[in-house]
Amino acid sequence: MADAEINQVPPSEETKAEGEETKGPSKSELKKRAKEAEKAKKAAEKAAKQAELEAQRAAAEVDFATEFHGKLPLNQSQTRPRRPRVQIASLNPNMDGQTVLLRARVQTSRAQGNKMVFLNLRQRIDSVQALLTVTPEKVSKQMVKWAASLQDESIVLVEGVVKKSPEIIKSATVGDVELHLSQIHLIAGLEGRLPFTVEDAARPDTEIETNEEVQYKRVLLDTRLNNRVIDLRTQTNQAIFKLQHGIGHFFRDYLDAQGFIEIHSPKLQGAATESGASVFKVSYFKGSAFLAQSPQLAKQMAIAADFERVYEIGPVFRAEDSNTHRHMTEFIGLDLEMAIEEHYHEVMELLDSLFKHMFASLRETYKNEIDTVRRQFPADDFKWREGPEGTLRINFRQAVDFLVEDGVPREVLDDINTENEKRLGRIIKAKYDTDYFIIDKFPMELRPFYTMPDPEDPTVTNSYDFFMRGEEILSGAQRIHDPTLLAEKMRSKGVEPESMAFYVDAFKMGCPPHGGGERRCSPGTRRD
Amino acid sequence: MADAEINQVPPSEETKAEGEETKGPSKSELKKRAKEAEKAKKAAEKAAKQAELEAQRAAAEVDFATEFHGKLPLNQSQTRPRRPRVQIASLNPNMDGQTVLLRARVQTSRAQGNKMVFLNLRQRIDSVQALLTVTPEKVSKQMVKWAASLQDESIVLVEGVVKKSPEIIKSATVGDVELHLSQIHLIAGLEGRLPFTVEDAARPDTEIETNEEVQYKRVLLDTRLNNRVIDLRTQTNQAIFKLQHGIGHFFRDYLDAQGFIEIHSPKLQGAATESGASVFKVSYFKGSAFLAQSPQLAKQMAIAADFERVYEIGPVFRAEDSNTHRHMTEFIGLDLEMAIEEHYHEVMELLDSLFKHMFASLRETYKNEIDTVRRQFPADDFKWREGPEGTLRINFRQAVDFLVEDGVPREVLDDINTENEKRLGRIIKAKYDTDYFIIDKFPMELRPFYTMPDPEDPTVTNSYDFFMRGEEILSGAQRIHDPTLLAEKMRSKGVEPESMAFYVDAFKMGCPPHGGGERRCSPGTRRD
Repeated sequence: MADAEINQVPPSEETKAEGEETKGPSKSELKKRAKEAEKAKKAAEKAAKQAELEAQRAAAEVDFATEFHGKLPLNQSQTRPRRPRVQIASLNPNMDGQTVLLRARVQTSRAQGNKMVFLNLRQRIDSVQALLTVTPEKVSKQMVKWAASLQDESIVLVEGVVKKSPEIIKSATVGDVELHLSQIHLIAGLEGRLPFTVEDAARPDTEIETNEEVQYKRVLLDTRLNNRVIDLRTQTNQAIFKLQHGIGHFFRDYLDAQGFIEIHSPKLQGAATESGASVFKVSYFKGSAFLAQSPQLAKQMAIAADFERVYEIGPVFRAEDSNTHRHMTEFIGLDLEMAIEEHYHEVMELLDSLFKHMFASLRETYKNEIDTVRRQFPADDFKWREGPEGTLRINFRQAVDFLVEDGVPREVLDDINTENEKRLGRIIKAKYDTDYFIIDKFPMELRPFYTMPDPEDPTVTNSYDFFMRGEEILSGAQRIHDPTLLAEKMRSKGVEPESMAFYVDAFKMGCPPHGGGERRCSPGTRRD
Repeated sequence: MADAEINQVPPSEETKAEGEETKGPSKSELKKRAKEAEKAKKAAEKAAKQAELEAQRAAAEVDFATEFHGKLPLNQSQTRPRRPRVQIASLNPNMDGQTVLLRARVQTSRAQGNKMVFLNLRQRIDSVQALLTVTPEKVSKQMVKWAASLQDESIVLVEGVVKKSPEIIKSATVGDVELHLSQIHLIAGLEGRLPFTVEDAARPDTEIETNEEVQYKRVLLDTRLNNRVIDLRTQTNQAIFKLQHGIGHFFRDYLDAQGFIEIHSPKLQGAATESGASVFKVSYFKGSAFLAQSPQLAKQMAIAADFERVYEIGPVFRAEDSNTHRHMTEFIGLDLEMAIEEHYHEVMELLDSLFKHMFASLRETYKNEIDTVRRQFPADDFKWREGPEGTLRINFRQAVDFLVEDGVPREVLDDINTENEKRLGRIIKAKYDTDYFIIDKFPMELRPFYTMPDPEDPTVTNSYDFFMRGEEILSGAQRIHDPTLLAEKMRSKGVEPESMAFYVDAFKMGCPPHGGGERRCSPGTRRD
């Protein structure tokens, strides 16, 4: 049909154009034109006839491969043939010649003529190249055409033979094999247009900036967030969520082995706590409740209740109307608290071991995921000090001195703001070749009321922050376990102990010395 | 001093009483009295002198044991001697003769005369008997008196020698040794009166009902909740929280091995979802937000985003103004969702294996904790079917038939209410000797809009509940992954698909067949 149209159009176009050029055509010219028109008409007729014949032939031609392709009926668990399916990640050259069955997304498809189509098939962070070629009695032209017409992101069930690839296929993560398909069925298609391709969403900035072909293919943050379900399908995001899973796992893993138990403190609270300004209010039947801003009070009360060592991974809510990556209205906090025997450095050292365990385990177990993220977001290797020298620890005063030496005026260093934190990270990296360090002994005025003062210098506290690449990753301290001193410190920070009686009372019934740490921004305490 | 008082009082009492009996004493009587008075006076003088001497002696007597007892200064991490401390649970007869140091609560103390005091020392679920006896140059009378005066629930640091116990001490969990103390210091005392003792809070009902001595010592629920920090210290509650930790651990453990990843879906949502009636509203800056009633929609969207297998353990909020143990405004939900290859029984069977893994692991790892809970709350052994026969599965219709056979009128069995659920549990236990079973194929009208209909009977769904001792412990189903069928089912249940476009749209971009399960009450769906 397409061919026939092309044959018909040019003559009429030509006629028109020439007619406009002169005022009137000559006789011979008219004769010539009539002859040409006749010729064109005949050609058109011939073409039309040919097209018709071809259509008839096509209609008459039985697709011998209808069983091997097409849309499957909606899966309502009609049958259970129990045919094993494989994961793309498991495919390898040793499987050369094996027939496998798998479910995957069509990331992209590319037809070559009408006899062959290449498909990039994806599962989570893995992909493989698949090939469908017209083959007598096995793969029909119709089947290839149908496969080539599948929308990107369709979910298909394919059967094919694993073939060792003569050269590494760079467009797939499993590059040493390809799949020669014998069957392809659609499990779930798309309704409507894909807002962006997963391939575009995974491009590194450097590629977009240097490669003219893709310079307009940047997917903006708003577009991503408005289509989060698509954006999460990028191999980068799949890897990030797997790493996040790993972080939770290694955190618990280490602490479980140290005798901690996991708690889930209530998120709906009867009173606003810590700093009333940034708390969300909830309509609670005829009254009001508030969303917990942190498990701080609950986990300390768990220590007063003899839990000895507790941790929590859970949502934290902060009513902060700001738009930085350090101030969110909801995020997942990692918290721990433990009784101490002699000294708060017991907690600090446990936290340090915990972090080193997490760093090493992530690198060991999730290399593939880390490499995947780096393809979109290039980053240097993360460095920390292992071995007998241990993690670098400096006091807050020393940190200030480092910054002063580097040219920051001492007057602005009552606190270390985000910019100076980054600068300190660079100074430490240059001096000690580590991306990870601890600052101990923060000034009292930068810490919340429950922080234990230093036994010798009351302007300083038994508190610490952990840093990674110039950003605080954890904040912690010894807490006050004595109700009298606690009430005194509350008043000095403008909090009425009576307003938090449920909390102060817990310490009146006897509480061991304790300390902890938390991964979360601390508005109202340190740096806002 | 006490003795002196007793000696002084009787004579004056006697005089008075006798004086009232007669009108006037005789001469000889007066003489006798004067003599007696003189005698009494001398005795009193003697006693007073003795008492004075004793007081002088006591004052003069240097307490040679001041170093070995007393209140420690507030721990502000002054020093770090790094002296190893032990756990009560680790004490055993093989340590006979060893000196140990430990921090513990004084659960109870009982003085025997003024030379000996017994202390019941407690750490979490473990306790041991300690003994402090006056010993020349080591333990002074003052020290014993001070130790005996410690309030219950004080936190002490004790040093003592482990001694094999001649007979099992029933009042302690570590009954085969006792500690002979050489030092006892107070780390944290109490301010005010203990509302109830931890011992009373841990008594089983049967003891309270049968033992006259403790019949008024029942601690009521309100008192417990108003003093939760004390109530949580009972060995029962310590064990319950450890078991809860174990449940989370084994849940994750099993699912991690099956390729699941943990997600943390947002709790603050822009729109009320599932059933608008029971959702909490939050003031969100100038607008409103809503608390997530379940991760249902989020976890399904994670499947549409290619996560393949996800789970979540996190808070769930339900604005239900009721007071049953099955309807709470906040609780921790355990949720999972996975893509299925062929049939929803893949999910059902994975859930079944998950539960059996949890049952067996809890019994194996937490025997001590289970026994501890049973001391306060006696219960039979939990029975489930292991082995080739597998878990008992029946269809909803069969469950109804069982109840009808048992005498329940069929007319009331459109749904199985809580009472009939319990009854069914008893029927199944009698018939099959199991406390654990599955009901499959619930009617469409009892299930939420996202439940996949059975391929043959549209009045029935591909959904199941798991039961334990006649109570639903999990609800789950295959979900609808097709956006057209989903919208149709939403409308048939009175939900406008447009009002949840973010959810319906996720399926328009292609979603694999999937199913899942959740441990939570389902108001608005099944049984309210």
